[in-house]
Amino acid sequence: MTRAPATPGMRLDEIDTPALVIELDAFERNLQRLVEAIAGRVRLRAHAKTHKCSEIARRQVAAGAVGVCCQKVSEAEAMVAGGIGDVLVSNEIVGAAKIARLAELARQAQIGVCVDDARNVSELEAACAKAGARLDVYVEVDVGARRCGVAPGEPALALAREVVPRRHLRFAGLQAYHGAAQHLRSMTERRKAIGLAAAAARATRALIEAAGIACPRVTGAGSGSFMFEIESGAFDEIQPGSYVFMDADYARNEWAAPLPRFEHALFVLATVMSRPVPERAVVDAGLKASSVDSGLPLVWQRAGLECVRVSDEHGVIEIAPGAAAPALGEKLLLVPGHCDPTVNLYDCYVGVRGGRVEALWPIDARGALY
Amino acid sequence: MTRAPATPGMRLDEIDTPALVIELDAFERNLQRLVEAIAGRVRLRAHAKTHKCSEIARRQVAAGAVGVCCQKVSEAEAMVAGGIGDVLVSNEIVGAAKIARLAELARQAQIGVCVDDARNVSELEAACAKAGARLDVYVEVDVGARRCGVAPGEPALALAREVVPRRHLRFAGLQAYHGAAQHLRSMTERRKAIGLAAAAARATRALIEAAGIACPRVTGAGSGSFMFEIESGAFDEIQPGSYVFMDADYARNEWAAPLPRFEHALFVLATVMSRPVPERAVVDAGLKASSVDSGLPLVWQRAGLECVRVSDEHGVIEIAPGAAAPALGEKLLLVPGHCDPTVNLYDCYVGVRGGRVEALWPIDARGALY
Repeated sequence: MTRAPATPGMRLDEIDTPALVIELDAFERNLQRLVEAIAGRVRLRAHAKTHKCSEIARRQVAAGAVGVCCQKVSEAEAMVAGGIGDVLVSNEIVGAAKIARLAELARQAQIGVCVDDARNVSELEAACAKAGARLDVYVEVDVGARRCGVAPGEPALALAREVVPRRHLRFAGLQAYHGAAQHLRSMTERRKAIGLAAAAARATRALIEAAGIACPRVTGAGSGSFMFEIESGAFDEIQPGSYVFMDADYARNEWAAPLPRFEHALFVLATVMSRPVPERAVVDAGLKASSVDSGLPLVWQRAGLECVRVSDEHGVIEIAPGAAAPALGEKLLLVPGHCDPTVNLYDCYVGVRGGRVEALWPIDARGALY
Repeated sequence: MTRAPATPGMRLDEIDTPALVIELDAFERNLQRLVEAIAGRVRLRAHAKTHKCSEIARRQVAAGAVGVCCQKVSEAEAMVAGGIGDVLVSNEIVGAAKIARLAELARQAQIGVCVDDARNVSELEAACAKAGARLDVYVEVDVGARRCGVAPGEPALALAREVVPRRHLRFAGLQAYHGAAQHLRSMTERRKAIGLAAAAARATRALIEAAGIACPRVTGAGSGSFMFEIESGAFDEIQPGSYVFMDADYARNEWAAPLPRFEHALFVLATVMSRPVPERAVVDAGLKASSVDSGLPLVWQRAGLECVRVSDEHGVIEIAPGAAAPALGEKLLLVPGHCDPTVNLYDCYVGVRGGRVEALWPIDARGALY
């Protein structure tokens, strides 16, 4: 881990940069707002791939989450080591080394995993038998994301039949996450996409149950759509992640009831390191400080300042005529385009409240890629 | 640091994924090819922002580099701690905490920094006086990158005059790096851009020298253009970084004499984690395993396989009709779109030779952002 950029008690403008800052009041309101929106109608299993931080996961569980999702075994290991007792790896785990670690982890906590292949089911069973572990297994159904997962209906039933007889696996239900729907801009488009996903999940569950197999749970949903999954009645559990931070790309979505609007709570703090001409400022935060896969970072609450390009370690800010220009050495807050891969660039969060550093939280699953 | 994905002696297909792999033979040829191309005509100061690894920096110095460049003080600290005695921070360093650390580092090694602001010169002098250190200072001239740097000519002379009288600073010359020229696709465009940059640098040096100020060195150039800087005669030192690895975006450049062609030496090793339909494979390497700011990764030496989209932890590979399809669990090498921010995602390199793991090299400046 690199040196922390701050110590508790510091003022915001004393933090070394670039730093990953959480505005704690907004963050806590986001946690609360989600819990109030779902009003106990489904289980909340927050996605930890967004924050990669067991400190945040513990707060989510304290606020009512049953546990967390992870995408990687190594992430799940960090969460279990951080005291989270129920982790769903909402992804396929392939390869002997990874499967052995997953089975080992299933001896220490309640662990789930997704499958979309029969041979993979056999390998999971063999590893859990060897480890003396029991693993929850969800059949992943492709409900529109065109990524992993079997087709809804018969293929999902066929795979469930592979899981059911295994002594060390427990068929836990369906994973039905529609990732691509999260960033459809209009509410209408998102509602429609989730409607189709829910119909596919419902029909698949009915088919499995008609075959005499209990299908305990349908899990899925993300920050951009979770109320539609709840409305559909087809889901028992939701997996939102980005709601804790709210990034610039999510902010470009249309937000209206029944979805609550979350607040920007995650920022990259940057220093103006060059003021070469009146219309340009250069900050010390570029590609290695803020992932730009979903667009450039936004300058926060500084009218007329726009980040127009980034290179590895520089962000170029254009200053509109008449805008209040930042001075050399001044610090600016940036809202990252995409929170998840931005978080993965840092070793710790700097939690700020009322303009002062309150806490440093290690991003203990940072770099846990495997 | 996360757990290493391999141990020496392993076969390539035993490495856990995603992993950052260096093909050592190609890497060593790249080191050698650059040294042969420049044939001692200029000093080589390799850019360590690409690799962030003191192990690699030591190899570059052993192959003839005078030292390295860094972009951040924390990177320079890692390089000095790793035994590199001469480091140019080819960037402006602003803010009291960073400047104090830079001054402290200048007590331990030969350290240089760039400036484009007179107040910053005063702050550097004050910090070096306090630390009892001496720092090389280069006036950065904007020769076309439209990022940091003063304008060529009089503004550069004015800033050199600020540096010269300082007791703890040594005016070391001009930084004249044209970053934007590196990725101009045609040789003609790049030669023209560097021709203009060289003319600006030459005129500025002449002006400074005509004012009676010695201008010891003009430094700059990158992997896409360095032979043009050498041809111009205006540069004493070059700063290529990416040549050690050669990424997919650099490969899209036209390469012809006098520039040598470098080989892809850096790969992301990924596992096929899902084969949901015949025309699609999904690998376990997405945005957190390969930066896509300069384009998606390329599948290496597998005709008919193309990475068509990525999400946080998934890469979707399209399989052309008739192509040899990869099996579930199979491992694929990907050439990252942009090497520098990709490297910054990993804690170590897995050095491979002849299909076997030879070495693990810590990326000791990974995450050194400040």
